[in-house]
Amino acid sequence: MSSKKILGIDPGTGICGFGVVNFTTHKQPRMITAGVIATPAHTPLADRLLDIFDSLNQIIDETHPDEVSIEKLFFNQNITTGISVAEARGVVILVARQHNLPIYEYTPLQIKQTLTGYGKADKKQMQESVRQYLNMRDIVKPDDAADALAAAITHALMTRAQYDLK
Amino acid sequence: MSSKKILGIDPGTGICGFGVVNFTTHKQPRMITAGVIATPAHTPLADRLLDIFDSLNQIIDETHPDEVSIEKLFFNQNITTGISVAEARGVVILVARQHNLPIYEYTPLQIKQTLTGYGKADKKQMQESVRQYLNMRDIVKPDDAADALAAAITHALMTRAQYDLK
Repeated sequence: MSSKKILGIDPGTGICGFGVVNFTTHKQPRMITAGVIATPAHTPLADRLLDIFDSLNQIIDETHPDEVSIEKLFFNQNITTGISVAEARGVVILVARQHNLPIYEYTPLQIKQTLTGYGKADKKQMQESVRQYLNMRDIVKPDDAADALAAAITHALMTRAQYDLK
Repeated sequence: MSSKKILGIDPGTGICGFGVVNFTTHKQPRMITAGVIATPAHTPLADRLLDIFDSLNQIIDETHPDEVSIEKLFFNQNITTGISVAEARGVVILVARQHNLPIYEYTPLQIKQTLTGYGKADKKQMQESVRQYLNMRDIVKPDDAADALAAAITHALMTRAQYDLK
């Protein structure tokens, strides 16, 4: 029996979703924690990035993940959002590297297809798929936390053959 | 007489330019150091960001700048480059914040106009303006290092009234 913990991240400077899932051979995957690193509107970018750095260090120290799965930047129409997501990604990838954690990246399309079989799934469908996959009673809120769990689940499913996961 | 040291940064994941300039009232501004944090082609992004983090910490510990001036992202046609510059910017801004250094941002247009009076100045013109402003015999190479010095000089000139600089 093998087991691994995956930390999923949905990066952003205003709200950065995180979620840790434990995957064990032939067992029901189990959520260890999920939430968001959120800073109030108008918080300076530098303070936000410091908050992400400190919070992520704490999450990793407390949950000891084996691998990190992070949502890859999908360049949509909003360039300003794209830049700030990339700035957050830089800090997230740095922290993972400082902890010597392997980092895997998946596009929103890959994550949606893996979780729901449908690349254009909406937030509700994603939250429901995450709930079902983790066998939880309620959906995980906010959706940034659910998206982070979805990134972790996607990585587990993409590499399932290797680990003989459910 | 007042004096301040400004660390200029031209962010990038492959090559990140840096330059520290000492500005003292009524005196010729003086370059303290300048160079690039460069990683070989095909280096994983996480390793690059870690290198930027470690190198920048070392530069700040050695030169003790008072303020940081960083080139703001100008979104050109190359989205992939833009994303990787933003990832590097995230780490640079984080390090400056961890050292409690005030961070100022200027667009490439502002920097070019401030240094040369011409918003479309090319690399050679910028290098020559930096050389003249710092009263150096030779131009600073590579141009990422000169661009970092230009960011530092721009911030000094933008705030000159405040400090009564040359």
